[in-house]
Amino acid sequence: MGHKKIRTALTVDLNKPAWEQSGLHNRWHPDVPACAKIANNEVVKIECLDWTGGQIKNNDSADDIKNVDLTQIHYLSGPFEIETAEPGDVLLVEIQDVQPFEEQPWGFTGVFAAENGGGFLDEIYPEAAKAIWDFEGIFCSSRHIPHVRFAGLIHPGILGCAPSAEVLAEWNRREGELIAANTLARDVAKPPEPKSAHAGSADESLKAKIANEGARTIPGRPEHGGNCDIKNLSRGSKVYLPVHVPGAKFSVGDLHFSQGDGEISFCGAIEMAGVITIKFNVIKNGMAKMGMKSPIFQPGPVEPQFGPGRYLTFEGFSVDEKGKQHYLDATVAYRQTCLRVIEYLRRYGYSDYQIYLLLSCAPVQGHIAGLVDIPNACTTLGVPMDIFDFDIRPEADAVKLDMGTCAFTSK
Amino acid sequence: MGHKKIRTALTVDLNKPAWEQSGLHNRWHPDVPACAKIANNEVVKIECLDWTGGQIKNNDSADDIKNVDLTQIHYLSGPFEIETAEPGDVLLVEIQDVQPFEEQPWGFTGVFAAENGGGFLDEIYPEAAKAIWDFEGIFCSSRHIPHVRFAGLIHPGILGCAPSAEVLAEWNRREGELIAANTLARDVAKPPEPKSAHAGSADESLKAKIANEGARTIPGRPEHGGNCDIKNLSRGSKVYLPVHVPGAKFSVGDLHFSQGDGEISFCGAIEMAGVITIKFNVIKNGMAKMGMKSPIFQPGPVEPQFGPGRYLTFEGFSVDEKGKQHYLDATVAYRQTCLRVIEYLRRYGYSDYQIYLLLSCAPVQGHIAGLVDIPNACTTLGVPMDIFDFDIRPEADAVKLDMGTCAFTSK
Amino acid sequence: MGHKKIRTALTVDLNKPAWEQSGLHNRWHPDVPACAKIANNEVVKIECLDWTGGQIKNNDSADDIKNVDLTQIHYLSGPFEIETAEPGDVLLVEIQDVQPFEEQPWGFTGVFAAENGGGFLDEIYPEAAKAIWDFEGIFCSSRHIPHVRFAGLIHPGILGCAPSAEVLAEWNRREGELIAANTLARDVAKPPEPKSAHAGSADESLKAKIANEGARTIPGRPEHGGNCDIKNLSRGSKVYLPVHVPGAKFSVGDLHFSQGDGEISFCGAIEMAGVITIKFNVIKNGMAKMGMKSPIFQPGPVEPQFGPGRYLTFEGFSVDEKGKQHYLDATVAYRQTCLRVIEYLRRYGYSDYQIYLLLSCAPVQGHIAGLVDIPNACTTLGVPMDIFDFDIRPEADAVKLDMGTCAFTSK
Amino acid sequence: MGHKKIRTALTVDLNKPAWEQSGLHNRWHPDVPACAKIANNEVVKIECLDWTGGQIKNNDSADDIKNVDLTQIHYLSGPFEIETAEPGDVLLVEIQDVQPFEEQPWGFTGVFAAENGGGFLDEIYPEAAKAIWDFEGIFCSSRHIPHVRFAGLIHPGILGCAPSAEVLAEWNRREGELIAANTLARDVAKPPEPKSAHAGSADESLKAKIANEGARTIPGRPEHGGNCDIKNLSRGSKVYLPVHVPGAKFSVGDLHFSQGDGEISFCGAIEMAGVITIKFNVIKNGMAKMGMKSPIFQPGPVEPQFGPGRYLTFEGFSVDEKGKQHYLDATVAYRQTCLRVIEYLRRYGYSDYQIYLLLSCAPVQGHIAGLVDIPNACTTLGVPMDIFDFDIRPEADAVKLDMGTCAFTSK
Repeated sequence: MGHKKIRTALTVDLNKPAWEQSGLHNRWHPDVPACAKIANNEVVKIECLDWTGGQIKNNDSADDIKNVDLTQIHYLSGPFEIETAEPGDVLLVEIQDVQPFEEQPWGFTGVFAAENGGGFLDEIYPEAAKAIWDFEGIFCSSRHIPHVRFAGLIHPGILGCAPSAEVLAEWNRREGELIAANTLARDVAKPPEPKSAHAGSADESLKAKIANEGARTIPGRPEHGGNCDIKNLSRGSKVYLPVHVPGAKFSVGDLHFSQGDGEISFCGAIEMAGVITIKFNVIKNGMAKMGMKSPIFQPGPVEPQFGPGRYLTFEGFSVDEKGKQHYLDATVAYRQTCLRVIEYLRRYGYSDYQIYLLLSCAPVQGHIAGLVDIPNACTTLGVPMDIFDFDIRPEADAVKLDMGTCAFTSK
Repeated sequence: MGHKKIRTALTVDLNKPAWEQSGLHNRWHPDVPACAKIANNEVVKIECLDWTGGQIKNNDSADDIKNVDLTQIHYLSGPFEIETAEPGDVLLVEIQDVQPFEEQPWGFTGVFAAENGGGFLDEIYPEAAKAIWDFEGIFCSSRHIPHVRFAGLIHPGILGCAPSAEVLAEWNRREGELIAANTLARDVAKPPEPKSAHAGSADESLKAKIANEGARTIPGRPEHGGNCDIKNLSRGSKVYLPVHVPGAKFSVGDLHFSQGDGEISFCGAIEMAGVITIKFNVIKNGMAKMGMKSPIFQPGPVEPQFGPGRYLTFEGFSVDEKGKQHYLDATVAYRQTCLRVIEYLRRYGYSDYQIYLLLSCAPVQGHIAGLVDIPNACTTLGVPMDIFDFDIRPEADAVKLDMGTCAFTSK
Repeated sequence: MGHKKIRTALTVDLNKPAWEQSGLHNRWHPDVPACAKIANNEVVKIECLDWTGGQIKNNDSADDIKNVDLTQIHYLSGPFEIETAEPGDVLLVEIQDVQPFEEQPWGFTGVFAAENGGGFLDEIYPEAAKAIWDFEGIFCSSRHIPHVRFAGLIHPGILGCAPSAEVLAEWNRREGELIAANTLARDVAKPPEPKSAHAGSADESLKAKIANEGARTIPGRPEHGGNCDIKNLSRGSKVYLPVHVPGAKFSVGDLHFSQGDGEISFCGAIEMAGVITIKFNVIKNGMAKMGMKSPIFQPGPVEPQFGPGRYLTFEGFSVDEKGKQHYLDATVAYRQTCLRVIEYLRRYGYSDYQIYLLLSCAPVQGHIAGLVDIPNACTTLGVPMDIFDFDIRPEADAVKLDMGTCAFTSK
Repeated sequence: MGHKKIRTALTVDLNKPAWEQSGLHNRWHPDVPACAKIANNEVVKIECLDWTGGQIKNNDSADDIKNVDLTQIHYLSGPFEIETAEPGDVLLVEIQDVQPFEEQPWGFTGVFAAENGGGFLDEIYPEAAKAIWDFEGIFCSSRHIPHVRFAGLIHPGILGCAPSAEVLAEWNRREGELIAANTLARDVAKPPEPKSAHAGSADESLKAKIANEGARTIPGRPEHGGNCDIKNLSRGSKVYLPVHVPGAKFSVGDLHFSQGDGEISFCGAIEMAGVITIKFNVIKNGMAKMGMKSPIFQPGPVEPQFGPGRYLTFEGFSVDEKGKQHYLDATVAYRQTCLRVIEYLRRYGYSDYQIYLLLSCAPVQGHIAGLVDIPNACTTLGVPMDIFDFDIRPEADAVKLDMGTCAFTSK
C-alpha cells in the first residue's frame, strides 16, 4: 500500500554539453532510437534542457543571442517508446505539471539578430536583444524590463510523436518546394541540416542518415504538432496527438515559463530548462475515430485569470507600414497589431526593444477577429493591464518612468 | 431631481425600406450629413437595422441569402455629430448595452454563395445556406442547428468615425492598387459602387458625389475601425476611436447577437436589428497623446465565461488542403484550423454546412499561436464544449444524433 | 413561420398604488388566486414593482426610508398557475433576462433605521440612510457614493412557489415558537400581519383569511426558497423549485440591479422595478428524484468577472466587538468581517454609512472559510477592487477624496 | 551575476518524530524561540510536516484517524524572525508557491470520530472515516471516492505572527470565559494543554511556561489569523498580517492540497506535508495606516476556474433538521446546506461519508447569501460539476455507479 514518488523517465545534466546526452535529439526522424520506455497509463517526469541547450547565459549582454548556433536547436527530450501505441492510434498526453529546475530559477527571452534567426518584426528591429527573467514561485520579473511582473502560463513549446518515413518525406517535399520557389531575401524554411544534428543514441551510420534526412524542429507541422508554441498547453492540459510509428516515439522540450500569442521575437517565450510531468494514454485507432489530421487539446483549468475587462486591446489590419494593401492577410494584420502596442507603450518610457521582448513572452491574447471582410483581415492583441505596476489605461495620466534597458550586444 | 429615460438619438422603422430612412447610410464619406447631434458625455440609444436592411427572412429557405443584394450593405445608423470633437481627438465610446428589438427576437447566420459574396471556405462550401436563431433572453438556439444553445456575446460589428477626404482618398488609392494588381479568380476588394448607395439625407448632387467616391463598408480599416467584426466589443466595452472630421461623424451598425473569431462564413455572425446604448466622451488631442493609429479597446466584464478548461481546441498550420506549404501565412493556417473542427464535429451527425455556420457565430476563440517558426504559422480555434447538450470530449462516446438540416436554396 | 415577441404574462403600473393591482400580492398563502396561467415550456416576461411598491423616491433625503411602511412588503408578481405542475414536481425556472424599466433607469439602497426594520449592523449604525443608483446599460453609479461604478449582477431577490396549507402551518408553528421564546430586545421574526396584506384578486372573505394566516415574505424559507436574496440568481440561471400546490402558484419580485453577499443593510440591494424573462419547465415527480428539500440552482454564464486576484479580502472571526468569544458563530464572524472593511475603506474619505451601503449592494463575495476550528468561525469578504476608480490596494498611497455624502433624514 | 536557488529557511525530516524537530512547535506563545532569521524582502522556502506530524498513514483503515492524538496538533514550522519587523507593523507575506514533497505525493482527508475531535456534522455522522488522495501534478484523485478528480487549490491552513503577551492573555481570558459558561455536551474551546506541547528549541523551563500558557493552534483568531483555513490563500496570494512582537515570529503550517469552504469534517482539507515559498516584506506602522485589526489578503491569479455556470448550487436556511427555527444563524444554515448536497449526491451511489469527505476537501464555494431576512439566514454551497466524470446536472439521467467505499475503522 502507498503511493510512491513519480518515476523520472529521463534526467538531463545542466553541466554537460547537450550533444553528449543520449536522451536528447534535435531532429525529427522515425529512426532516432527511443531513450526509454513508458507504459500505457503511466505518469512520468521528464527533464528538459532549454531549447538552445544552454547557450544563453544569465548576464547583461546579448552577445550570446547574436551568436547563437541555430543548427543545434531544438534539443528535445526523447524519443520515448509508449507501450502499445501503433500508427493510427492517438496518444493522449496529460500535462500534469511543468516546473523550472530548483537550482536554475530563471529564463530568457531574446530578439534574434536579423542576420541570425530574426523574428516577426526584424525588418524594423534587426538588432539582438535579451531579457533575463527571475522566477519567484509562480511569478516572474526582469531587471531588463522593470515595472512588470506576472504569473507564468508555463508550458512546453514542443511536443509530438515522430513522423513515419512517409510523413517525413512529405515534409521534405513540400518545404523543399517552398525553398526552391523562394524569391524573398530571407529564408522561408530550413532544409535538413547535417551540421550539429544530434540523433540521441544512434550509432554513427544511423546518425548520418538522420542528420541528412531529419526534419528541422523549427516549425510545428500539421501531422504531429511539434513546435506549435501554443501558450495554453499549460498545467492540466490534455493533448491528443496522432501516432505515426510503432511506440509513438514521443518527444518534448522547449519549455516556456510564459509566452504570448505569436511568440513574436522567435526566441520569444521565457525559455527555460525544467521538468514536465506527463500521463500517457493510448487511444486505439483514435485518428480514424476522431477524424484527426492535426493535434487537438483541452487546456487546463488553472490559467492565470485577469477578467475579460482587464485587457487593453489593440486592433491591426492588413495594410502594411508602407501603406500597401494586402488581401485578407492575417500575418500582416498581426504585425500591424504588434506595432500598435509598441507605439502605445512607448509613452511610459520603455524602449521599443523592451516592448518587443515583453509582447513575445507575457500572456498577451492574439485573436483573429475578422477574416472575410475583403480586403482587410483584422486581428487583435490584448495586453493584460495587471502585469504592470502602474496604470496603463488611456484615461490615466501617462508618466514616463526610468525603465533602464534590456541587454544589447557589446558591439 | 430624478433620472430620466435615456434619450433615443435615432429610431429606425423595421417596416420601411432602409433606403428611405434618412438616419441610415451605407458608404463611408466625410460629407454624409449628420442625422443628429450628441453632446459630449451624453448617453444615448441608437436603433439599427440588420446589416442587409431586412433582406433576410425568418424562414427555411436560403434563397434570400443566395440572392442578397450586396450593393446595399451595410446600412449604418448615423452619422452622428459629437459636440466638441475635432480631428486629432479620440472619441471614447462606452458600449453600455446592446439588445435586439423586443418585437423581433431572432437573427440569422448565412453562408453566402460563392458567386455572390462567398466566405472563408467557399472553395469547399460554395452553396448558400442559412440558420435562423431564436433569442430567449441572453440565450439563443436554432431549429437549423439542433443540440446547441449559448449565451450571446452581443456586439456591434461596425463602429467608427467618418474618414476625412484625405483618409478616404488613401483608402481608394491603396485598395484600387490591390484591385488593379489582382490575378485571382475572385474579387479582392470592392471599389466605390454607385448602385444602391445611400447617403442619408444628402440631396441629389451630394448623394451622387458620395455614391461615386464613398468607400464601401465591407472592410474594417486601420484609420477608423469600421467593420472590424471584433466579437469582444460587447456590453461594457470602451472603444477609443480616432477622429478625422469635425464632429467626429460617428456611425454604428451591423449588430451581432453573437459571433465567433473570424466570422468565417462572411454573413457569419448572428445578424440582427436592435438597439445599442452608448456613452460618448471626447478626449482632446487623444491621437497624439496615445500615439494612436488604429482603435484601441477595453472589453467589458460580462462576457460569457466557460472556464479555460472547457474549450476543445484545434490546431491548424499553413499547409493547405492540397499539401502546399505556405510561408508563415496565418490566414491559411486558420482555414486549416476551421476544417479540422468540421472534420471532428461531423461524427455527431452535423452536416458540414451546419458546422460552418456554427463556427461562424458561436463564441469560438481563434488565436494566433506561433507566427515565427518558419515556414509554418500555427493558429488555434477553441470550441466551448458547454454550448452543446451532449458531450463532445474525445474520450466520450460519439453517438450520431438526428441533426435535421440548415436552410438551403430551393434549387 | 416566424418567431414572435415574448408574451408578457403580467404588466404592472408604476403610477397606481400597488395594493390596487390584482396581479400583485404580499403574503405567502396557498389560496392567493392565480393572476395568470403559463404553459409548461413557455417563456414569458413578468413585470415587477420594486419590493416596497414605490415608497422610495429618487431624491436626496432618507425620510422615505425612515418612514417606510414595512407591513406592505414585499409586493410580488403572481401567483402564476403553471400548467401540469402538481405537488411533488419540481419547477425548473430559467431566468433568461432581468431588466429595469426603460422609463425608470435607477434604483435605491437603504439602511433602515434601527427602530423601523434595522439591519445587520444596526447596533452600530442605527440611522436611516439612502443611496440612489443611476443605471447606464449594464453599469450603475451613485451620486451618494462617488468614485465607484460597477456592472450589475442583476437578479430577483424573491422567487418561489406557494406553500401548501401544511407547509404554511409549519412555518407559522416554528416561527411562532421562536417569537414566543424571544428574550432579545428586538424582533426575531414576524408573525402574520393583517395590516396592509394584499391578496391579489381575492374577494373580501378570502382576503381576510389570507391576511390572518399568510406568512410574511420577509424570510426565505427552506421549503420553497422565497426571499433567499442570492445574488447569483442572475441572467441565465436555472432554479429548481419544489412544488407544493396544484399549478405551482409561482411568484417573483424584489428585483435587484445588484447585491452583495449578505445584503447586509436589509434594504441592501439596489432595489428596482423591472421585467424578468423566465422559461418554465415542470419536472414530474422531481422532488423525490432529486431528494430535494430546498431549491437548487445553476448560475448563468455571464456574471461580471474580475479575476480571482482582483479582490481585496477581509477576514473576520466569531469574537464580537466587545471582545466576547462566540462558539462557531458564522453570523458573528460575518459581522466582524463587514466591520473590518468599513474600518479599512474609511481612509479614502468615505463615511461609515456610505461603506455600509456599498457593501450591501456591490458584488462583494462573502464566504464561509472555516467553521470547525473551535471556538472560532472564520468568514471572508472579498471586495472587487476594480469597482473603484482609485487604487485600494494596501501598498498604494491612500489619499482622502471628497466623497460627498449619502442621503440622511431631514431630522 | 546570476540568480541562485531560493534559500530553504527550514527543512523538516519526514522520518523523525515531530517533537524532536526544533524548527517545529505546536502552541502560540511569544516566547517560542525563533528557529531562523529571514531578511526583509527575502524569498525563502519553508518545509512543513502535515498538521498531525505524520500520524495518518496511506492505507485503507481509519483507525489512525479515530485514535489521532490531538494534543499534538498543529505542528507548525517556525517561528521565524523577520528582520526589522516591530509591533504595529504589517508583515506582507506573498505566497509564491506551495508544493507537496516529491517523495510523498499524497494527502488525506478525515472525518474525526465524534468522541475524538468531531466535525461539523458529527451528530449525524459520528464515525471516523478517511480518504487518501493521490497527487498527479496539479490534479488529485482518491481510490476512496471514485469518479472525482480535480485541480488542487493548494494553500497553507495556518499562517500568522506570534501573539504578544497581552494578546495571548486576552485569548486565554475570552476563551476561558466561553469554556466556563459552556452548557453543551461538547467542548466549545480548548484551554492551554501541557500534554504534548512542543516549544521548538526552548529549554525545559521555558518549555514548561509555554506548555502552561500557550494558546492552542486550533482556532483562527482575529488578532493574527492563525488557523483561518481560507482555501483562497493559494499560489500568488498576498497576505497582510499584524505584527505583535519584535521580529514578528512568523509561523506557517497545515498545508492543504485542496479544501472546500468550511473545511467541514474538521480534518477536512487534503492534508499534506510539503514546501511553501514565501516572500516577506515589512510595512512599517502598517496596522495604524490600514486601520487593521485582522488579516487582509489579495488572492492569486491562478485559482482553478470552472466558469460561473459550472456550479450546481444548493440553498440552506437556519431551520435545523428537527424543524427548529433559529434566528439568523448562518452556522445552522450552512449545516443544512451541506446536508442538502449529501441528500442529492446519494443518488449516484456515494455513501454519505464519501460525500461528507468530498465536500470538505473539494473546491466548493460556500457563500453567505442573505443574513438579514428575519428569522432565516440563507447560505449557498456551489459544487463544481466538472470535478465529476459523470453528469450531475438535475436534468441528466441519474445512474448509480459502483462507488466502492471510503476507509472506516476496523471496529
